Amino acid sequence: MAKRQARFTPQELEDDPRLKDHSPTLWSEAESGEVGRRLLSSAVRCFAANGFHATTTRDISGGVGLSPAALYVHFPSKELVLYEIIRVGHERALAHVRESEAESEAEAAAGAGTGTSDRLRLMMRRYTAWHARHHVAARVCQYELNGLTPEHYEEIRELRRRTNEVFREVVARGVADGSFARVDVNRVVRGMLSLGIDLVRWYRLDGTDSPDELGEFYADLALKMVTGTGTTDTAPDGRSGRTGTSGNGSARGNGRKASGSSVPATGQGGPDLAGRARGGPGVGP
Amino acid sequence: MAKRQARFTPQELEDDPRLKDHSPTLWSEAESGEVGRRLLSSAVRCFAANGFHATTTRDISGGVGLSPAALYVHFPSKELVLYEIIRVGHERALAHVRESEAESEAEAAAGAGTGTSDRLRLMMRRYTAWHARHHVAARVCQYELNGLTPEHYEEIRELRRRTNEVFREVVARGVADGSFARVDVNRVVRGMLSLGIDLVRWYRLDGTDSPDELGEFYADLALKMVTGTGTTDTAPDGRSGRTGTSGNGSARGNGRKASGSSVPATGQGGPDLAGRARGGPGVGP
Repeated sequence: MAKRQARFTPQELEDDPRLKDHSPTLWSEAESGEVGRRLLSSAVRCFAANGFHATTTRDISGGVGLSPAALYVHFPSKELVLYEIIRVGHERALAHVRESEAESEAEAAAGAGTGTSDRLRLMMRRYTAWHARHHVAARVCQYELNGLTPEHYEEIRELRRRTNEVFREVVARGVADGSFARVDVNRVVRGMLSLGIDLVRWYRLDGTDSPDELGEFYADLALKMVTGTGTTDTAPDGRSGRTGTSGNGSARGNGRKASGSSVPATGQGGPDLAGRARGGPGVGP
Repeated sequence: MAKRQARFTPQELEDDPRLKDHSPTLWSEAESGEVGRRLLSSAVRCFAANGFHATTTRDISGGVGLSPAALYVHFPSKELVLYEIIRVGHERALAHVRESEAESEAEAAAGAGTGTSDRLRLMMRRYTAWHARHHVAARVCQYELNGLTPEHYEEIRELRRRTNEVFREVVARGVADGSFARVDVNRVVRGMLSLGIDLVRWYRLDGTDSPDELGEFYADLALKMVTGTGTTDTAPDGRSGRTGTSGNGSARGNGRKASGSSVPATGQGGPDLAGRARGGPGVGP
């Protein structure tokens, strides 16, 4: 009979190359302090490997050689550790995407003639590379939203909505200015973000694709998604060709009861995916 | 201070519309028996919502009003429940993809003139729709591989490798016969499968996209991925334009020590993602 599989201990996680990324650079020492930063880095590994619910505060503090009491000095609860990781992760990702837009704006203002395609390409490259570079923390950000309290979840959902919005704006602009085909903006953006998000499931820094290489490859794919082949744009008024209509992401949240109902643990920002008592429209991937 | 978030109980999970899918049709009554099927359906919900490690056998059996002892009659361990879900899920998905190829072959033999594009489109539509239709079980199949024993994991990895291979074959054929651009086969297929897999994170059956509608939309995107725009194919001999070279998926497994090292919990079929003592080359998404 098969041996029962135990969860991974912090000791096992410490040196695993698949759990190495640039996440520790996400935590500012000024904000979190040196011990706080070490605790956050340990928590990222524990949550990514075993899941939020199966991780104890002892696992987190033990991962950096401290007692659980030391953790409570910095984080009064396990949920607050998760919240800090997810909040900072989402804020940094949003800032990163916005920086790419600001850069494109600046180039355009300087007369460098940045087209909508270049903007989308830069944005997708940055979004992808950011998730690759911080793939362990990003995995927690994407797959552990269920561990948040409803209040914290709402806050994160707003950050996700804003990130999606930056993408939707550039794609909608490209459709409007004729750079792109008449694609279904919401659905296409959901597909792009899906590519950038799904990599946290399998990416590792010591693989053959560097974060920038993967970013470049996915920027190509994103651009192809908005070009004129396929049935989407040959039937612009048909079911799959409509522009700006709602995909699952934005429509299925309507009419959802903001009740105490539960959710799949591996959810994303959509209301269907991330926890109890979370009403309102979805935000897509 | 924020209230600590508890995991979801089977009672909470029972009626949640986000945990409804067609997974119960995956288990054959002849193979699993009536009680076995109910236990598997309960386990799918528990694992999908709380993760394998945070789920107890009491959760699973309690979800169908039975005692833990009743579960052990059918499954001697929690890992064997997980294994049954993941094995059947992967076998059905592979069969589904192969059926689409067999259908295309039959049409071609009947002189219906099925081109490589049609084959890829049908395959992607079926792959996507299958994952949407069974998205709760598929979520367990994708995100809980870490709970398997090394032996069981190896078996699943082989099923994943075969599924990927069917996709790689049709894309490589399209590149060879000139239907597609000279794309990087492994990387492009990884992107296609990423789209089909990531939906298990956010999809729900009562959303606006039916499984077939989403399948059709992603079939369009898959076809766009292999067309002639973007830099990938304008530089066919360059870094991002090469055909058939290894992406992260197939190369990063080389030289991995088959040791007792640990892995991210949300892993996929790649060796980087799914557990201890798992050597050999990766299989991509």
